Amino acid sequence: MSEQAEADSAVVTAAILVIGDEILSGRTKDKNIGYIAEYMTNIGIDLREVRIVPDVTEEIVAAVNALRARYTYVFTTGGIGPTHDDITADAIAAAFGVGIDHDPRAIAMLAERFPPDQLNEARLRMARIPAGAELIANSVSKAPGFILGNVHVMAGVPSIMQAMLDVVAPTLRTGVRMLSETVRAGLREGDIGTELARVQQAHPEVAIGSYPFFSDTGPDTNVVVRSRDPERLAAAVADVEAMLAAIRAS
Amino acid sequence: MSEQAEADSAVVTAAILVIGDEILSGRTKDKNIGYIAEYMTNIGIDLREVRIVPDVTEEIVAAVNALRARYTYVFTTGGIGPTHDDITADAIAAAFGVGIDHDPRAIAMLAERFPPDQLNEARLRMARIPAGAELIANSVSKAPGFILGNVHVMAGVPSIMQAMLDVVAPTLRTGVRMLSETVRAGLREGDIGTELARVQQAHPEVAIGSYPFFSDTGPDTNVVVRSRDPERLAAAVADVEAMLAAIRAS
Repeated sequence: MSEQAEADSAVVTAAILVIGDEILSGRTKDKNIGYIAEYMTNIGIDLREVRIVPDVTEEIVAAVNALRARYTYVFTTGGIGPTHDDITADAIAAAFGVGIDHDPRAIAMLAERFPPDQLNEARLRMARIPAGAELIANSVSKAPGFILGNVHVMAGVPSIMQAMLDVVAPTLRTGVRMLSETVRAGLREGDIGTELARVQQAHPEVAIGSYPFFSDTGPDTNVVVRSRDPERLAAAVADVEAMLAAIRAS
Repeated sequence: MSEQAEADSAVVTAAILVIGDEILSGRTKDKNIGYIAEYMTNIGIDLREVRIVPDVTEEIVAAVNALRARYTYVFTTGGIGPTHDDITADAIAAAFGVGIDHDPRAIAMLAERFPPDQLNEARLRMARIPAGAELIANSVSKAPGFILGNVHVMAGVPSIMQAMLDVVAPTLRTGVRMLSETVRAGLREGDIGTELARVQQAHPEVAIGSYPFFSDTGPDTNVVVRSRDPERLAAAVADVEAMLAAIRAS
């Protein structure tokens, strides 16, 4: 848990660790980070960091240990399939310094889908679970994820990851949800930046972000105001809107 | 530079650092990681790690210093706009322990787009460049990125980032390109995993990855074989194809 999280029990934090050479080579475009990020925001957990590492045991171990020491929860995606390049479960066991073996509960889950003659060496690899882990049910293809300490190990295939996240979410401690309001400026970012900084200074406990985009009518800006406190949020939004109206009228 | 890169000058490595609360909140879905990843593969640079951090100076500094010590190149995206939450340039200066100020070359670039009365405090913020940095021209909206040491600081807006990457790419040292061939198995991953591991063992200097997907006809698998050596690649692909043919015939 981060220092801030310890200081404020309303804040629950998380990190994502994406495991996979195919993401780093660009061959596969990740679809899980954005999904989990939005999901966490919606349930009141602050995603604080994401890392993507290759299918290399030492890299996975180092990242897992750095992230699990620092955040309330860690979510990993990828590397729990039936082939030789699926090394996540072994790496997590190494990170925690625990053993790993075929887990009878996981074998039973696989047996719901695969008849005995199809439960070959490769598929049984998906039943290798670190000692002491709880399983995460997989309603799509049966092979489970698992939870060890604060680390939640999920599949990389988006549909399976999403099903696992739905299983995991009700078990998570959640904080006070971060509220967010977006104000479209109708102005270029550089036209509002100086005044926006003053609004931010006047509302130090609210986070104000500014995001330029190109619309049909040219460059525009979304101002995003975030706070856990609805009254503080509303006060800052009102000041942002008044500031924008003044600039547009000038 | 990583140990492996030092041992083998044919290998050039890189990391991406995405900077931005909006990515971690899920409000904005990152489009730069996949683009840069594919770009690097195509020009012969191995992307080894990605991190996403919030708009917090200490987090940016820590990530930049960890990554620049370890990889040939670091590419950052985000946080170089005109508003108070754009803190990347200051954080990079802090990471390198150098000063930062308005740079006359950057002001001249901004002046190509903005008349003097529009070069306000906010826009001039985009001309704050760490001491000793080279600028990266921005053909889309003029505000430059910059290069300090091995760190390349680029915009977060995808169209601008892409234009900057095109400027930067010809200046990069590149290695021998990683070649890749994809073989569609027509089989489920668990049906080929055991034999695929044996092919991998027989070709230890080639990287074989296995990626399941759902096609119209049901679960299928792409086997991706990667090597810098075309002959080794061809030999491993031939063995993968023979192995798959034997399983399909069985």
